[in-house]
Amino acid sequence: MDRRKFISALGLGAATTALAACGKQDCATTEGATTSKTYHWKMVTTWPKNYPGLGTSPEKFAKLVKQMSAGRIEIKVYGANELVPAMEVFDAVSQGSAQMGHGAAYYWKGKHPATPFFTSVPFGFTAQEMNSWLSYGGGQELWDELYSQFNLKPFACGNTGTQLPGWYNREINSVNDLAGLKIRMPGLAGEVLKRLGATPVQLPGGEIFTALESGAIDAADWVGPYNDLTFGFYKIAKYYYHPGWHEPGPTLELVINKAAWAELPDDLQAIVRAAAAWANDDMLSEYTARNNAALQELKEKHGVQLRRLPDEVLVALKRESDNVLTELTADNEFAQRVYDSFRAFESSVRNYSAIAEAEYLAVRGKLAE
Amino acid sequence: MDRRKFISALGLGAATTALAACGKQDCATTEGATTSKTYHWKMVTTWPKNYPGLGTSPEKFAKLVKQMSAGRIEIKVYGANELVPAMEVFDAVSQGSAQMGHGAAYYWKGKHPATPFFTSVPFGFTAQEMNSWLSYGGGQELWDELYSQFNLKPFACGNTGTQLPGWYNREINSVNDLAGLKIRMPGLAGEVLKRLGATPVQLPGGEIFTALESGAIDAADWVGPYNDLTFGFYKIAKYYYHPGWHEPGPTLELVINKAAWAELPDDLQAIVRAAAAWANDDMLSEYTARNNAALQELKEKHGVQLRRLPDEVLVALKRESDNVLTELTADNEFAQRVYDSFRAFESSVRNYSAIAEAEYLAVRGKLAE
Repeated sequence: MDRRKFISALGLGAATTALAACGKQDCATTEGATTSKTYHWKMVTTWPKNYPGLGTSPEKFAKLVKQMSAGRIEIKVYGANELVPAMEVFDAVSQGSAQMGHGAAYYWKGKHPATPFFTSVPFGFTAQEMNSWLSYGGGQELWDELYSQFNLKPFACGNTGTQLPGWYNREINSVNDLAGLKIRMPGLAGEVLKRLGATPVQLPGGEIFTALESGAIDAADWVGPYNDLTFGFYKIAKYYYHPGWHEPGPTLELVINKAAWAELPDDLQAIVRAAAAWANDDMLSEYTARNNAALQELKEKHGVQLRRLPDEVLVALKRESDNVLTELTADNEFAQRVYDSFRAFESSVRNYSAIAEAEYLAVRGKLAE
Repeated sequence: MDRRKFISALGLGAATTALAACGKQDCATTEGATTSKTYHWKMVTTWPKNYPGLGTSPEKFAKLVKQMSAGRIEIKVYGANELVPAMEVFDAVSQGSAQMGHGAAYYWKGKHPATPFFTSVPFGFTAQEMNSWLSYGGGQELWDELYSQFNLKPFACGNTGTQLPGWYNREINSVNDLAGLKIRMPGLAGEVLKRLGATPVQLPGGEIFTALESGAIDAADWVGPYNDLTFGFYKIAKYYYHPGWHEPGPTLELVINKAAWAELPDDLQAIVRAAAAWANDDMLSEYTARNNAALQELKEKHGVQLRRLPDEVLVALKRESDNVLTELTADNEFAQRVYDSFRAFESSVRNYSAIAEAEYLAVRGKLAE
């Protein structure tokens, strides 16, 4: 659908006059600009339709928006490839062929090197820290500024919590053990692995199992126990590695076409904003509960063996992660600003976490042994 | 205000017929029951008016509800003692003299021994885990069942993150060092300290400074760096202890009078629900950011010395915490159900956290040293 057709189909061209023209039946009589105009919006997503967690969350978001708006915003959610392929979600919303999209900012690194900071970077933020950076550390303002160039308004809208770096068939006891391994690992973390001698491979989730089975790849990351269990990776790979240095708290994004966003009256903007915040937290709650249940099943029913990456490997991963982020942002002034903001917040948040969440979790774990 | 007067003042008696009677100007024409009726609600709180974080969050909640409802719900927020004293918030909302209240469930332990589980218990959940237990572990259903007896509908509506167990003037190197200390520590954690020989003292936040200064108490917990800094405890006590075994992720609560809740049309119920979820996360984001800044100021500007509770003391605290929770719930079937649900979720969530959030934070901290 081209842009003109999109505007016409939505009646957006006429919408600017809706407030002035609303009659007795169209306008609530209380304060605040509102209207009974119904917005029929499309949301394209980077996930298979109703994929557990990642794909069901946008459906719940749409349902909540409909409830809160008493049906004044109807959002139809499309899975990847239903309207546009997963990797065209950003462009589709930017150009206006859909009003909304759901995905992850780090998919759009080709558009701008700063995008990964708004999902997760290696050795970056946990979910709690990311939410705090966005709301109270200047992160949202930077994200707004960046996406504004692409005609988009972004919101955090989901988080999987700390992921696991994946499934291996051989043990990793030193950095040398990574050499030559073909590892499904996207984005910056893939680049980090490359610098340690591995070959990063980009594959959609649905193709990982077959690639592992055929030996086309030696190892693979996906999400965490909840999603990994359903893909059946345990049937092929024996070792499940931790900790999740690569994606410690990935934020999913809701993007809205700026012109469409501007058409919404204040109350509907507030409703969309709050629904995104609700979904942001609800997805994290779902993964927190279901990862645990799935981990238990993987260990007890399928005999999966957990392995911790050795300190030597983690030290090398951290060193190369810092190098990758420095080089990523070196040639772009805005990306440097984002990296500076990220680093300042991270080094500060780490200090309190060290005597609060981080230490508490460590102590409770030790006492339970 | 008595109950009949309250119902009359709000027009709640008439509200049941509002939907049937709404004329052209009163009803939105789209699907979903809605009305332009304006609800003027009162929210009583257990916090001083606009107290940083705890008290400003309900104000932001009220503002968001007003925005989303285009003014159809106006909530006037009252600080402690403005309408009712802090410790009468539960009763006031239960009896209907206010429609809403904001506080913490563990204040109402005298009403029912299960209430502390819905705020925080010693060695309990972090914020992320608590949210997950409520939404995906059966916690919210138990909370609804419990509060329903008191004519209330509860929602999580704020979290301070992991708190710190407080300010001391002498070092705690063994359990024996606790003996005889008068420590401001409320609720179950106070009971735990009592079993280790200390004397727990109950004091409102505003009275702690003077009590410490006069020597009426030897030590005090309050919240964490952000709130503790403003009270100036660093002027009197030298050591700031961690980790926060006593309140690892306290949830604040929004309580709504059930009759008032039932009067709201579906869209306004959804709006209130989503605004509570927004505030729940927003407060955590605020504390996460501001605790760090305040901690830095306490250390660098005021020379506060951080001290970690020794393992011996933590082991004893955990043992007595388990005893206190077991005894608390022993004589009440419902409280036992809540404790069972809590324990099942905690022992499960701990396993994934050990290889995800907890391990990631520990590794990142170690690599930053």
